[in-house]
Amino acid sequence: MKAALLDAHGEKTFALIFDKGDEVVAELTAFAKREKLGGSHLTAIGAFSDVTLGYFDRERKEYLRIPLNEQLELVSLLGDIALDGGQPKLHAHVVVGRADGTVRGGHLLEAHVWPTLEVILTESPRHLVRTLDRESGLALIRVDGQPRGVDGPGVKTRS
Amino acid sequence: MKAALLDAHGEKTFALIFDKGDEVVAELTAFAKREKLGGSHLTAIGAFSDVTLGYFDRERKEYLRIPLNEQLELVSLLGDIALDGGQPKLHAHVVVGRADGTVRGGHLLEAHVWPTLEVILTESPRHLVRTLDRESGLALIRVDGQPRGVDGPGVKTRS
Amino acid sequence: MKAALLDAHGEKTFALIFDKGDEVVAELTAFAKREKLGGSHLTAIGAFSDVTLGYFDRERKEYLRIPLNEQLELVSLLGDIALDGGQPKLHAHVVVGRADGTVRGGHLLEAHVWPTLEVILTESPRHLVRTLDRESGLALIRVDGQPRGVDGPGVKTRS
Repeated sequence: MKAALLDAHGEKTFALIFDKGDEVVAELTAFAKREKLGGSHLTAIGAFSDVTLGYFDRERKEYLRIPLNEQLELVSLLGDIALDGGQPKLHAHVVVGRADGTVRGGHLLEAHVWPTLEVILTESPRHLVRTLDRESGLALIRVDGQPRGVDGPGVKTRS
Repeated sequence: MKAALLDAHGEKTFALIFDKGDEVVAELTAFAKREKLGGSHLTAIGAFSDVTLGYFDRERKEYLRIPLNEQLELVSLLGDIALDGGQPKLHAHVVVGRADGTVRGGHLLEAHVWPTLEVILTESPRHLVRTLDRESGLALIRVDGQPRGVDGPGVKTRS
Repeated sequence: MKAALLDAHGEKTFALIFDKGDEVVAELTAFAKREKLGGSHLTAIGAFSDVTLGYFDRERKEYLRIPLNEQLELVSLLGDIALDGGQPKLHAHVVVGRADGTVRGGHLLEAHVWPTLEVILTESPRHLVRTLDRESGLALIRVDGQPRGVDGPGVKTRS
């Protein structure tokens, strides 16, 4: 994977271009650690030679694994990077398209790129932090404040 | 739902983190009214305990309702907020993933969050306005000018 | 299609609102040429009266065509615009929703808008360039440098 900084006025925007065979979650996590990212959001399109999707099973409190071993269009990847235990953690969801135009989708557990993946990643000046949610067993982003002190019906009071 | 202002150099970027049970359209609309948003675009991932999708029926000029009462991965939410009758109005489309990796998608009519929804919302300095389109019966965004006065084949003349 | 410049602090953000009957790829390409775009990313929602999806066949090194001649919700469009042979080239992937909530998706080859398409396009100060990849036969974006000279495991050395 190679990276280009596209803009840096407050937020920083990167184009990340993956190579054939790159594993998406590992490469993005390594990039986030090197660049010390902690408040990013990203979109991507491209194609995969295989992908493992996840579906969160509420009763088991774990992701069911849905492996797809075929060439797929990556029709949508949306995600973010927040800090979890002090380290950047990727959270991404994908939709993939098959040869007949039908699609599958879910949480991204693992995927290999072929021939390319084009990611636009924006890092904000303010970082986001995940903490364990006991009920689900998942690390969820916590935001405690309000942007300008707004306070009213439907808005939680700030901490 | 809680909000964090991530950046504010010209555009403002918010992270909006929803709580379990939050209804997405109502919470986003309430936030938009409080923050006086009128030219926003947003992306989101997360998961729903239920969702009602819409498909616009051209003959009836109304949305067919497609309710899904099951735990779903929210694999994609793309949307915008523009002014409609002077009030901010959300327009969002979603793709949701089921336990077997198959997906459904459409116009977002209603959805409840479980366990989280992570929205990145960007508000621009310039607002967008919807007006009624008689042929479809829908309120569509109107843009009358050209960005730098460009004018040529395929571009409508400005008003 | 009509355009409004929403913001221009480093990056420029446009709202592009399409009219009934507009063909998406042709209009976006014409806009990109007029505005001399070369490093853009975009998202969109709306609806189509028809679409032709593509799936890249690795053996044939060409796109299989998947035409859908029906009214469809455009539930997701993600794309970018880079320079290919000195001219701006659109690369976009879409997910469309049918009347029963099932979806189809793939590479966008052609689509007609009805009644609207709402595109948010961001042009960065730095352009992206495609070059031919002989193995796949596709023109892929090349990024040779690293954003801040980072260099390590999982990052290719810069040229």
